[in-house]
Amino acid sequence: MRIRRAGLLTRRAFLDAALRGAAGAAFLVDGGGARVAAQASPAGRLIVHSARPQDLETPAHLLTSWITPNELFYVRSHFYTPAIRDDMWRLHVDGAIDNPVTLTLENLRRMSPSTLPVTLECAGNGRGYFNPPVAGVQWGKGAVGNARWTGVRLADVLRSAGVQPSARFLWLDGADTGPGQAPDFIRSVPLDKALRGDTLLAYEMNGERLAPAHGFPLRAIVPGWEGAYSVKWLTRITVSERDHAGPFVSTAYRIPRSPVAPGTVVDAAQTIPIQGLLVKSIISSPAAGAALPRGRATTISGFAWSGEQDIARVDVSVDNGRAWMPATLDGERARYAWRQWTLRWVPDELGSHVLVSRATNAQGRTQPIEPSWNPGGYLWDAVDRVRVDVQPA
Amino acid sequence: MRIRRAGLLTRRAFLDAALRGAAGAAFLVDGGGARVAAQASPAGRLIVHSARPQDLETPAHLLTSWITPNELFYVRSHFYTPAIRDDMWRLHVDGAIDNPVTLTLENLRRMSPSTLPVTLECAGNGRGYFNPPVAGVQWGKGAVGNARWTGVRLADVLRSAGVQPSARFLWLDGADTGPGQAPDFIRSVPLDKALRGDTLLAYEMNGERLAPAHGFPLRAIVPGWEGAYSVKWLTRITVSERDHAGPFVSTAYRIPRSPVAPGTVVDAAQTIPIQGLLVKSIISSPAAGAALPRGRATTISGFAWSGEQDIARVDVSVDNGRAWMPATLDGERARYAWRQWTLRWVPDELGSHVLVSRATNAQGRTQPIEPSWNPGGYLWDAVDRVRVDVQPA
Repeated sequence: MRIRRAGLLTRRAFLDAALRGAAGAAFLVDGGGARVAAQASPAGRLIVHSARPQDLETPAHLLTSWITPNELFYVRSHFYTPAIRDDMWRLHVDGAIDNPVTLTLENLRRMSPSTLPVTLECAGNGRGYFNPPVAGVQWGKGAVGNARWTGVRLADVLRSAGVQPSARFLWLDGADTGPGQAPDFIRSVPLDKALRGDTLLAYEMNGERLAPAHGFPLRAIVPGWEGAYSVKWLTRITVSERDHAGPFVSTAYRIPRSPVAPGTVVDAAQTIPIQGLLVKSIISSPAAGAALPRGRATTISGFAWSGEQDIARVDVSVDNGRAWMPATLDGERARYAWRQWTLRWVPDELGSHVLVSRATNAQGRTQPIEPSWNPGGYLWDAVDRVRVDVQPA
Repeated sequence: MRIRRAGLLTRRAFLDAALRGAAGAAFLVDGGGARVAAQASPAGRLIVHSARPQDLETPAHLLTSWITPNELFYVRSHFYTPAIRDDMWRLHVDGAIDNPVTLTLENLRRMSPSTLPVTLECAGNGRGYFNPPVAGVQWGKGAVGNARWTGVRLADVLRSAGVQPSARFLWLDGADTGPGQAPDFIRSVPLDKALRGDTLLAYEMNGERLAPAHGFPLRAIVPGWEGAYSVKWLTRITVSERDHAGPFVSTAYRIPRSPVAPGTVVDAAQTIPIQGLLVKSIISSPAAGAALPRGRATTISGFAWSGEQDIARVDVSVDNGRAWMPATLDGERARYAWRQWTLRWVPDELGSHVLVSRATNAQGRTQPIEPSWNPGGYLWDAVDRVRVDVQPA
């Protein structure tokens, strides 16, 4: 990530910078020289849905590599990015454990590290496509990215804490707090998921210290599950017999138990929490609206992922979804990471064409034509469509 | 068709009756006892897009048989239904022919008859689904039907008229005329299509005299091509070296030469006339919004057609377009008629599901996911979708 060292910026200056897309990540330097993460914005090529709190989407055509560069990685924040001094920061582990513990960043860095490529996707990715529209950030398809996360295994921390047999959930609490009476952002992870060796407490992203927007200094990485489980600015892990009762567990990030007709009002008692991401693909190149010369080869490319499952195949249509051709899955792969795919195409018919991509996972589950509308606008998973214009060469 | 003998109805009474759906077809009885077709409405189960001129759509769930009953057959009219006395009516055949001729209905009835099942579909069927919206009658998917048409072969009439070698088009003119300065409704058929033995001049529909709404006393049937070629209330056939220059040939019923992006303004010079209907299917049962009991077998059924081509297969998805099952094509078939298809389904998951149908013709052409938007809103051909709700049995 491009780092700009800044003096004390006013809130307005931050906002302006974010809207200009010029701020980069900003570190405020305090008197003692410790670095403090402050409200900051990644580089200006992201789509700003909200500057404060920061909700930034990656334009899909900028997703060109298996690893998403930090400065292009989408940002989802519920509240303002907290200003955290890494030398003051602590992680408290408490609740239904034998040995409550408070850890410094240095404590964590001395533990055995683990690095895992994990694709994160906001549960609301694609919300802007739902019809009827649904309240919330109107994400297009770019609230997704793939990074190498380095940190410690959550299981290692829990093991030393001595989880009691009655425990069933972990409550993850970040340092961000809402304005006024807004509830704290706490998410709840089932213990069995947390104890798998691949759930991390990460302090690095693609080999760099976590940026403020991405959870500096510590972020949970709950691989294969929707992004909100990967709580940023983590300060407390509470082990509990119960699921958390707060609104970010009991109301948000939930879908109807059975699919409902678009526009249906659904009682919270009839909902279940979202966990694993669905099988899904996006076309990242060509960009929507691209002009392509007839008769000249072009490469259609994109990404496919399926939460905890493997991608088995991606099929692509260049004729509005009539005929399908298998795309080539690239070699870079990891259990919780997306697959990049490509298809060579020589356009032979002039005019407007809709490219469509459709992924299938190892269980044979494939993307639908019609997504399951839900009141939260979560888990948009329909086949992806990109319209291009074939022009005389 | 249910016939109601009526006295002289006022225009308002007709309109009210049509809107009530109670008029049926009305024949006014004149002093001499000859039957005169007047502004009339088929039975009241059709969707009234316009009562005068008559534009009536068949609710798709009422399409349950291979042959569409006359009283359920969609009606498309550009102008007011003309009041025609069958004993006064004449068909004039003129233009680039050796023997101009004027024929009575009796002349035609004495010629060798031909009966052909032909599916007619309005070129604008599905227009209401286009996004962005397009001006014109906002048809759903029910401006289509299949009937047995009885009449004479147009080729027989043309043979006796002696078509000159220079001739290339037939101009078909109906008795309907527009209000004020509105142009005459004239359509132009290429001579080679007209000379095929299966292009008819029909005076019966499903064994009954043509109803006024369907073109009494004579209608062209141009099989496999969009419905506007099948000109109603036919009074004149002019053979010509040139295509007709009127707006119903040079402006309407045309699509862009190459597909365009939705919302594009297209110059008339960049358009081509619509001819054959595209491969297409609709689900007619269950009806949209139907409640289906879980665990109980139901039959999904519908129709598929492809203009001049045969239907090879219909595939149906019961899970929003993920997995597909082949439907059974019923036995009743004819070259220009749709195929009825069925699929038995035992719903096993509660909730809202989208059924999707996708037809493929004998040439391997299949329906798209995204239709080709065009400024006229013609030829909507996307896979059909019906949302149903599976409920506890």
